[in-house]
Amino acid sequence: MLKLLKQIKGPENLKALKEEELIELAKEVRQFLVQSLAQTGGHLASNLGVVELTIALHYVFNSPQDKMIWDVGHQAYVHKLLTGRRKGFQSLRQFGGMSGFPKTKESAHDVFETGHSSTSISAALGMAVARDLKGEDHQVIAIIGDGALTGGMAFEALNNAGRGHTHLIVILNDNEMSISKNVGGMVKYLTKLRSSRDYLRAKEGVEDALNQVPVIGEHMVHTIKRTKGKFKSFLIENTLFEQLGVTYLGPIDGHSYEELLDILENAKGMKGPVLIHVKTKKGKGYRLAEENPSAFHGVSSFNIATGEISKKCEGKSFSSAFGEAMLQMASEREDVVAISAAMPEGTGLLEFSKAYPRRFFDVGIAEQHSITFAAGLAAQGIRPVAAIYSSFLQRAYDQILHDVCLQNLPVILGIDRAGLVGEDGATHQGLYDIAYLSSMPNMHILAPKVPEEVEGAIRYALHLNAPVAIRYPRGTATLEVAYHHDYKDVSLKTLKAGHTRAILACGKFVGLALEVSQLLEEQGESLAVIEAPCCYPLDKEGLLKIAQGYDYLFTLEDGILLGGFGEKVFSLLIQEGYTIKGHQFGYESGIVEHGDIAHLLEKEGLTPQKISVQIQRLCGKESK
Amino acid sequence: MLKLLKQIKGPENLKALKEEELIELAKEVRQFLVQSLAQTGGHLASNLGVVELTIALHYVFNSPQDKMIWDVGHQAYVHKLLTGRRKGFQSLRQFGGMSGFPKTKESAHDVFETGHSSTSISAALGMAVARDLKGEDHQVIAIIGDGALTGGMAFEALNNAGRGHTHLIVILNDNEMSISKNVGGMVKYLTKLRSSRDYLRAKEGVEDALNQVPVIGEHMVHTIKRTKGKFKSFLIENTLFEQLGVTYLGPIDGHSYEELLDILENAKGMKGPVLIHVKTKKGKGYRLAEENPSAFHGVSSFNIATGEISKKCEGKSFSSAFGEAMLQMASEREDVVAISAAMPEGTGLLEFSKAYPRRFFDVGIAEQHSITFAAGLAAQGIRPVAAIYSSFLQRAYDQILHDVCLQNLPVILGIDRAGLVGEDGATHQGLYDIAYLSSMPNMHILAPKVPEEVEGAIRYALHLNAPVAIRYPRGTATLEVAYHHDYKDVSLKTLKAGHTRAILACGKFVGLALEVSQLLEEQGESLAVIEAPCCYPLDKEGLLKIAQGYDYLFTLEDGILLGGFGEKVFSLLIQEGYTIKGHQFGYESGIVEHGDIAHLLEKEGLTPQKISVQIQRLCGKESK
Repeated sequence: MLKLLKQIKGPENLKALKEEELIELAKEVRQFLVQSLAQTGGHLASNLGVVELTIALHYVFNSPQDKMIWDVGHQAYVHKLLTGRRKGFQSLRQFGGMSGFPKTKESAHDVFETGHSSTSISAALGMAVARDLKGEDHQVIAIIGDGALTGGMAFEALNNAGRGHTHLIVILNDNEMSISKNVGGMVKYLTKLRSSRDYLRAKEGVEDALNQVPVIGEHMVHTIKRTKGKFKSFLIENTLFEQLGVTYLGPIDGHSYEELLDILENAKGMKGPVLIHVKTKKGKGYRLAEENPSAFHGVSSFNIATGEISKKCEGKSFSSAFGEAMLQMASEREDVVAISAAMPEGTGLLEFSKAYPRRFFDVGIAEQHSITFAAGLAAQGIRPVAAIYSSFLQRAYDQILHDVCLQNLPVILGIDRAGLVGEDGATHQGLYDIAYLSSMPNMHILAPKVPEEVEGAIRYALHLNAPVAIRYPRGTATLEVAYHHDYKDVSLKTLKAGHTRAILACGKFVGLALEVSQLLEEQGESLAVIEAPCCYPLDKEGLLKIAQGYDYLFTLEDGILLGGFGEKVFSLLIQEGYTIKGHQFGYESGIVEHGDIAHLLEKEGLTPQKISVQIQRLCGKESK
Repeated sequence: MLKLLKQIKGPENLKALKEEELIELAKEVRQFLVQSLAQTGGHLASNLGVVELTIALHYVFNSPQDKMIWDVGHQAYVHKLLTGRRKGFQSLRQFGGMSGFPKTKESAHDVFETGHSSTSISAALGMAVARDLKGEDHQVIAIIGDGALTGGMAFEALNNAGRGHTHLIVILNDNEMSISKNVGGMVKYLTKLRSSRDYLRAKEGVEDALNQVPVIGEHMVHTIKRTKGKFKSFLIENTLFEQLGVTYLGPIDGHSYEELLDILENAKGMKGPVLIHVKTKKGKGYRLAEENPSAFHGVSSFNIATGEISKKCEGKSFSSAFGEAMLQMASEREDVVAISAAMPEGTGLLEFSKAYPRRFFDVGIAEQHSITFAAGLAAQGIRPVAAIYSSFLQRAYDQILHDVCLQNLPVILGIDRAGLVGEDGATHQGLYDIAYLSSMPNMHILAPKVPEEVEGAIRYALHLNAPVAIRYPRGTATLEVAYHHDYKDVSLKTLKAGHTRAILACGKFVGLALEVSQLLEEQGESLAVIEAPCCYPLDKEGLLKIAQGYDYLFTLEDGILLGGFGEKVFSLLIQEGYTIKGHQFGYESGIVEHGDIAHLLEKEGLTPQKISVQIQRLCGKESK
């Protein structure tokens, strides 16, 4: 009954265990994770894969003096468990509860916050350089998956680490997966490395490899020789990493303490940048997750015996609607292709990838490349649709602006998870897309408000022949059919008449605006509801008419206020010489922590009740 | 007298030349470039380096059927010269004249626009895939420098190219330089490749390498064997590129037609992705540029005999002031370090890099890494200042938001070239930084208006202990000392009193606001001038006072209107219940083409005359 695990309040208790007890501890950790996440949901498979690795790291290193940076961060559960946060799992990812990602405020053992991919080596190099500048003596360890290694900034970081003598340790956690199966030349290469352990020449390899090692000095050569020698059967000469100047060790079995403890202990004593290639199995120890690691990547509650996972979404999700619409478009037009950045399932494109394999491109975790690749396709007459989560698309800001918008190329962005996503928290909320895309020349931003409108929005985008972003939220939304929009045009549309006051909303929040209006109506007050099927550019003519027709204008959006839809509305009115009174509703702060969406909206003041009270208050006030 | 060059109206005339005439043509091209750029200025050294390479490309391939994509694009002058644009050089980079970068509107031979680094392989892969989808048959060639290869998205593109069988040719133009000397593990590696040609085993090498080649088929193996065999003395087995799945050919001498024509002809017939490593010398053929390629990277007019370059900037530039201030800070505080992304000279940090080599980090063209590296340093108590040009900083949007702002880490950004830069054109104008940074939580944006204020701004930023961006323009600005600000605080400051109308400006454009006010005064009208030393967050108290004190409020900024400073000003007033009349002055469009800044400001309506007329017009109008 978690005998060992219960003793562990922090790494010091772990270190007190005997090496042979660690195997039992790993069993208990897995048992705990499966049972706990079956209740709360969370990232299961990736954490099951790093149980021994995390235990070994905390056994060998001294956190928090030694700094561990978890790339992406959803695989830090075992780390949380070993650093005194077992109780936190009861409230994992819940409103006010423990985060599913490293959080510096949560524990001194979380030294850098992560969420997006491929940041850990850069941050680790910064911390290692800081250590050297301050004359301190501790270890810095970045733990990065093979999926995250395909992100360009990881390469930039390796390229910089490899030039110098700063000691840091990079653990390459190679499970052959990101969320889905990995892709790309690097993956093929890692496969070759993994399989090479059986036929590699031992001695010659060691000697050859030593000639590649970037650090000098008799003592070091000896240490490396000893370390590499010890793992000589695992040794690869002249790896890609060593060509960049990073000492490569491995590959080793990430579920063998014998190999893990030995190599970590040795890496500690080395100089310069060291990469340890650790092979792990996603879902390890829970058969159902081993067999279907994608399905058990991020789960809601599930039945341990059957593996049945509770449905996250009632009704058809926007992502499914997007996937279906893309299948339809592809059947109608040969020039339509789809691009994903390591998220074929999440973005609803799995069926498309099977039906149209030649017209589907999963570029891996490489959002920057995905957009300029799309620009290249579009420049030659193909109509690419890149489906990427809002918060991950931030990685491609410059490519959207510089490669797509400046050239006015007809690239369509399917921006999934736009608006609040909930449990993944601040690093994953899709708050910024309207703000940053609406500054870009030639860009159009469409916001279907129910899944049924997605196909129309794609058709309209294809018809526009310009850069178009279609933003839609996680999950679903429902509205009476009478309110559905066909995207034959995108002018402002009054859904509900009213006098003196109007609310202008876009996307899923049109539903919220209707609820606000309904609530006010029940109190004998009126609020017109107007939808903007296109958040940007604005329907100027329509907007000026509204400005003339109402005394108060409110805007409502599922995004950050600063730079958002509301700001654009009032800015246009100012430029046109109007001085209407009003208010912008949306997220005041760019940081919305984790929790279920209902709680988060309550906290942000975006419920029908709170908005209607605020409107009443504002209209009661004298204008200044 | 440019006998051959004058015959060349397009690639077809080039192809009509005999191979032995190409040497003479190269001489003429160099003569033309030196003489022409001595008058107009432009990117000299990089173009002198690619004369033979560009001639060979157009001799072997058929542009525009075959697509050439010039990474960064400032090295496409020879390409422009060979594709009928010799006359354009008279107006190179001038307002209304020929662009210094590839422009699709300028010529059918410019198939993709570039400006920022490392985009070409992604775009080329997109075009090559489009070709295959459409069943067409032509070549796609990306020409990329070794500097640009350190940008992460180039790696993402290689990783994606290497996974498949799509044929494309990547020319690695290796001159060991970006603008300055290159850095990083990749550079060391390329140096090793370059020097390896003398001692590489020939035959074994070929055979070994063939086992690495990712394409299959008897015919292909034969072709590659022949090609590689021909260049067997240049052959490297098991290169980093081949590990990613890209066939590597080279290195060859980029000034030898014999090697160039042969290898290009052969690469044409190969399948899959091919990378040709071409060694060139930046500045080749003009001794002064060969000796000092950094100085002759981008020049204004110069004396051919002495190499004396006209000064670009009267008085001390903002960049120099920044460099001096950083030296001062470093002498006062041990925790201050500086980061550059391949721009130590341009950002004024050359002296700093010499005086404090341990505290200076040139990360190469790797803006993403630079910011997260800074975040890692800041998380451990170091105070990093990253100096990056506004338009290049766009590459690090996500890192600023996700790694710096969400964690509220005290990283300081020295945003050089903020606002219009002029001759480099649309891809280089620094229009967007206020718009995108002002959405980010915890961010502060300071805008010193004269170089003398930069040090104060850095001191204030260090004192803030939060993410701070200090934006300043290219060149210089002057103002009476009475108007200088000491950055002891950043509240709004009235520089000139007035009644009923006020203009609120930030940065260099405070000077423009004063000129507008002066002009109106001469016409017997009044306009108060208020400066915002901090564009964001706004001094709310100060702003509300202004809103109460004036009937009309104008804003003025050296940046895009959409999402910019003015939008934030009026948005805050709306949220606070104010309904003041006003107007935002700045750039209406996100695309401002090349030309001298004076002409561009005239075109954008941002001269004292145009603004004052507009203000008079607006105040004469009835409010709606």
